[in-house]
Amino acid sequence: MLTPPYLVFLGDAHNPLSIKMANGIATWRKEQCIGQFRLPACSVSAGLPDLDITTAAKEGAKTFVLGFANSGGIIDVSWLPYIKEAIRTGMDVVSGLHDKLTDFQELVDLAKDHNVRLIDIRHPTVKLPTGKGYKRAGKRLLTVGTDCSVGKMYTSLAIEKEMQHRGMNVDFRATGQCGVLIAGKGLAIDCVISDFIAGAAEYLSPSNDSDHWDIVEGQGSLSHPAFAGVSLGLIHGSQPDALVVCHALGRTSMRGIKDKPLPTIARTIEQNIDAARLTNPSVKVVGITVNTSSVDETEALAICQSLSAEFDVPVVDPIRHGVAAIVDALA
Amino acid sequence: MLTPPYLVFLGDAHNPLSIKMANGIATWRKEQCIGQFRLPACSVSAGLPDLDITTAAKEGAKTFVLGFANSGGIIDVSWLPYIKEAIRTGMDVVSGLHDKLTDFQELVDLAKDHNVRLIDIRHPTVKLPTGKGYKRAGKRLLTVGTDCSVGKMYTSLAIEKEMQHRGMNVDFRATGQCGVLIAGKGLAIDCVISDFIAGAAEYLSPSNDSDHWDIVEGQGSLSHPAFAGVSLGLIHGSQPDALVVCHALGRTSMRGIKDKPLPTIARTIEQNIDAARLTNPSVKVVGITVNTSSVDETEALAICQSLSAEFDVPVVDPIRHGVAAIVDALA
Repeated sequence: MLTPPYLVFLGDAHNPLSIKMANGIATWRKEQCIGQFRLPACSVSAGLPDLDITTAAKEGAKTFVLGFANSGGIIDVSWLPYIKEAIRTGMDVVSGLHDKLTDFQELVDLAKDHNVRLIDIRHPTVKLPTGKGYKRAGKRLLTVGTDCSVGKMYTSLAIEKEMQHRGMNVDFRATGQCGVLIAGKGLAIDCVISDFIAGAAEYLSPSNDSDHWDIVEGQGSLSHPAFAGVSLGLIHGSQPDALVVCHALGRTSMRGIKDKPLPTIARTIEQNIDAARLTNPSVKVVGITVNTSSVDETEALAICQSLSAEFDVPVVDPIRHGVAAIVDALA
Repeated sequence: MLTPPYLVFLGDAHNPLSIKMANGIATWRKEQCIGQFRLPACSVSAGLPDLDITTAAKEGAKTFVLGFANSGGIIDVSWLPYIKEAIRTGMDVVSGLHDKLTDFQELVDLAKDHNVRLIDIRHPTVKLPTGKGYKRAGKRLLTVGTDCSVGKMYTSLAIEKEMQHRGMNVDFRATGQCGVLIAGKGLAIDCVISDFIAGAAEYLSPSNDSDHWDIVEGQGSLSHPAFAGVSLGLIHGSQPDALVVCHALGRTSMRGIKDKPLPTIARTIEQNIDAARLTNPSVKVVGITVNTSSVDETEALAICQSLSAEFDVPVVDPIRHGVAAIVDALA
């Protein structure tokens, strides 16, 4: 569990895509973010007040969050002085990078001296069981995608928020480092040893009240040549009652793979339903969300309406239209 | 790469199923095994000559192989004296357990003093890429299963042996610890971080001569609630031209899962072909192998013939009938 409020460190980032972690927490947990700390070379913003480390600490910041990513997930040694400064003010440090904070002995020693935690949220610390597939009490919704990065986390969080707003009994279950940062708990499932993917998903959404919904953040895509194994283990372990299919308009090739066209939504539904039936024979698709940012409002609405007629479920852009229609269909 | 000849350590094992590693190497690489070393309480055998450590070393043993497994994959401290004795005679030590030899500082120090290696074959030491799915030169056969432990490794090794016998250009590609021990190289794919399953499979069967066959050892089953993610990543990364479906007669429930019936062979073919088409649209099933040990010779033959008529591919028990019929169909 992470301790808010957060000071979000943007380093010297200049690519808006590289501060996904910062944007995620600033979008979904703004009230827990006391500000952002940027180095002079930084040219992007998460839209939070700019604060230096000392000021943020005085204003009550409890956790210093590395809000950026880079290719390879490396912790650059040029950031160590800032991380150390945060530790000296008494903040925990959270990283979602592949490199571990705890691999730097100087950070480990300093954190010990100041009685703060170094939290590498991408790296599981629990001993996981292998999956079993036995039916658990409670209800589960899983987001699945035509590709990676098509809005599965956003859709999941939006559904949780809408259900909370209606007083429903619900929890978002984070399965990626950005989701874990936002939720303050969860497991980065792509960092689990492969024998334990389904087991990790079972661990993340344990038995619950019969009216309780887990909204499980999906990962990857069954049609992605690199990551489908993660997607499948997550589907089996989550034993979803309900699937929401996520898609991004205008994508011409699977993320990171040249000349690999996306599957159709029909194919995605067929694949995911077929896979999910192994652990929940009564699984159903309850909605589709589409990232329509590549077209205007009118076209976006027309596309969603046409897809809704084709697949006979609510279809929305969660940012433009909200997800109330999907929650209506669930309730 | 492991260095034969091997002295195979059976510890105090008394369950024949617990010495799978020892039986694997004794069956497939008998000429590389100088003997087995058993503690007094051991009541099982891999069928090798009994030798103590000192004698085996004098006779030229180069590697001390932990030939047993236990629940949890633990290295019991009661074995350390024997491991140390082997190190002192100059042998490398190989373990396929989950616990690492290298986590015991006393073993690390002693191995360094004696200039020998501690090899935890279950734990990948290479930095793996994520998968891409791009077409590689050469041909690939992958074994897939209705369940775990239905003969995928045995089938793969038997096909390699038959192809070698015919002078074909072939390599067995090990994906489990027992296979890695037998082949002396490979990767235990269930121990890879889940983001890299497909990437690991691509790494294991790189581009090759156009007439070269990789025989890739399959893992798990697309119908297994715990391990299907591993199976799927392995299918995508292996981009098989040919699949061989493996099945065990008389199994009533998926391995380790109560009351979970096995899929039919027809369903298994459908699932695996559908999955494999993502990275190799021309994939075909070229044979079926059945573990028929639960029935007599006559019934075994009748079952194989009936399945062969049903699916229009060669069907054999690799132990009773050999795999020549499958290699005929390939060539």
